[in-house]
Amino acid sequence: MQKATVTILGCGSAMPTRKNFPSSQLLEIRDKQYMIDCGEGTQIRMCQTGVKTNRLGHIFISHLHGDHCFGLIGLISTFGMLNRTAELHIHAQPDLEKIMQPQLQYFCADLSFNVVFHSINPRKHEMIFEDRSIRVFSIPLKHRVPCCGFLFEEKARDRHIIREMIDFYKIPTWRIPKIKQGEDFETEEGEIIPNEQLTRESTPPKRFAYCSDTAYSEKIIPIISNVDCLYHEATFMEDEHVRSKQTEHSTARQAGTIALKANVKKLIIGHYSARYNNQTELLNEAKSVFENTVLGEDMTIYEI
Amino acid sequence: MQKATVTILGCGSAMPTRKNFPSSQLLEIRDKQYMIDCGEGTQIRMCQTGVKTNRLGHIFISHLHGDHCFGLIGLISTFGMLNRTAELHIHAQPDLEKIMQPQLQYFCADLSFNVVFHSINPRKHEMIFEDRSIRVFSIPLKHRVPCCGFLFEEKARDRHIIREMIDFYKIPTWRIPKIKQGEDFETEEGEIIPNEQLTRESTPPKRFAYCSDTAYSEKIIPIISNVDCLYHEATFMEDEHVRSKQTEHSTARQAGTIALKANVKKLIIGHYSARYNNQTELLNEAKSVFENTVLGEDMTIYEI
Repeated sequence: MQKATVTILGCGSAMPTRKNFPSSQLLEIRDKQYMIDCGEGTQIRMCQTGVKTNRLGHIFISHLHGDHCFGLIGLISTFGMLNRTAELHIHAQPDLEKIMQPQLQYFCADLSFNVVFHSINPRKHEMIFEDRSIRVFSIPLKHRVPCCGFLFEEKARDRHIIREMIDFYKIPTWRIPKIKQGEDFETEEGEIIPNEQLTRESTPPKRFAYCSDTAYSEKIIPIISNVDCLYHEATFMEDEHVRSKQTEHSTARQAGTIALKANVKKLIIGHYSARYNNQTELLNEAKSVFENTVLGEDMTIYEI
Repeated sequence: MQKATVTILGCGSAMPTRKNFPSSQLLEIRDKQYMIDCGEGTQIRMCQTGVKTNRLGHIFISHLHGDHCFGLIGLISTFGMLNRTAELHIHAQPDLEKIMQPQLQYFCADLSFNVVFHSINPRKHEMIFEDRSIRVFSIPLKHRVPCCGFLFEEKARDRHIIREMIDFYKIPTWRIPKIKQGEDFETEEGEIIPNEQLTRESTPPKRFAYCSDTAYSEKIIPIISNVDCLYHEATFMEDEHVRSKQTEHSTARQAGTIALKANVKKLIIGHYSARYNNQTELLNEAKSVFENTVLGEDMTIYEI
């Protein structure tokens, strides 16, 4: 069975630390890659983590603070040096294209591939992208600048075929894809074999939500409810809740509360303020509310 | 005695590797700091190296390839978050300002300090900056785009005063700075004590040259001749000299040859192509021509 994973390339906040680069994640679902945010040094983290990004076609940018997008120009330049040919799609607020075009024209004039910008409206919850494998929805967040998270929903997977039934009914190979999608099978004798006899339930499709940067906002709960994995920022500890309110960030306890109220299966926290050397304290605070919390760490792969 | 040092923050080439970030160095002379180039992740390397940059006022950009300047916007943003107040001066070709202004306006609108751009002409060898401690000269290099290196020349240091003579002649404290600068001293009895009797030779001022990126060019030799330390790029091994010529980079042997012909005291090589896992081979090649060569390594401090 194919696993869905998210690789955290950076989960620091605006100020980088020895441990954490700024925000970037690489989601892998059904052999495709989707990047979420691209802070400075993302391409370096990819290199250090040993991820190849041949299957990366789409990058989603949550908001236009530097720690979420300064790595784009370097990544694109490097893709150019590697003679990439596939289009690279960037989904972001329209200002990003305006700011990046002069840089692309100057530094990437002879690019071997097209960079295609797609405009997103961070204030609306809507489907912003769809391919054969997934749908991506925006999640309006509450931050100092317009900002949205992203919900990645895998499309229904094919049903699992029961090998013995294929042999028993001598089903020809060319019929199998349709049967996996739910069709019944008619034998040469005209007998109809119902699909349930030939297949088992498909693996439930995965759902992953990325919510950073955001103040505590219960408005997101209906959107992210029951996801397999939620990445939610936890910039501060609860004892800094005044500061977290001012800067429109969340505390670890608030991240845990959102996870609990949204009944998610797993919570990953991140976007830690540079002031915390010991991030275990942040983990413990989130865990005190929502037990199945894991500490986001740079260069680490998490199963969804 | 104050040491002059250069800290290599990154000495990779365009493509970052697990080991090397793109180009950036921090020169420290007489308690002042000067940055040369600022590739992506420079601020991260500073943080990992544990360098504070309170005394950094001037950044010199050799040329406008991304691996030499993509780190500027992140560095400036972070200085803003740290509430820096001192002006930051950037010496670069004028196009850099044009490209950076839209980014600065968008991402650094409320900056607590001024960023001042100074235009340099990479085709001319001239003094481009001077303060109480140093003079900086441009070194025209030979690259695919206009590019110059930098020669940092420390100004003459004060002579060393001989403590016993101060006591012997009862020289008042307020006279000492002038004596260090070479003045004679007249005793109360009207006797003139020549300066040579009161002081010893000053420490010779240091000279450091940065030459990256460049094809082999003997034109730079008169400019960098006899420097205490030369950083010269060595992107390739000699067996890739065709490729080095095409891309207008140098081989390790060529870097050694320049060091030898310019009679420098020490050579540091860097700007290694990502293809070399074992950089000792590059070191050995340069050493075969110029013995006192050291391997440039990220996050390492070199005495000049």
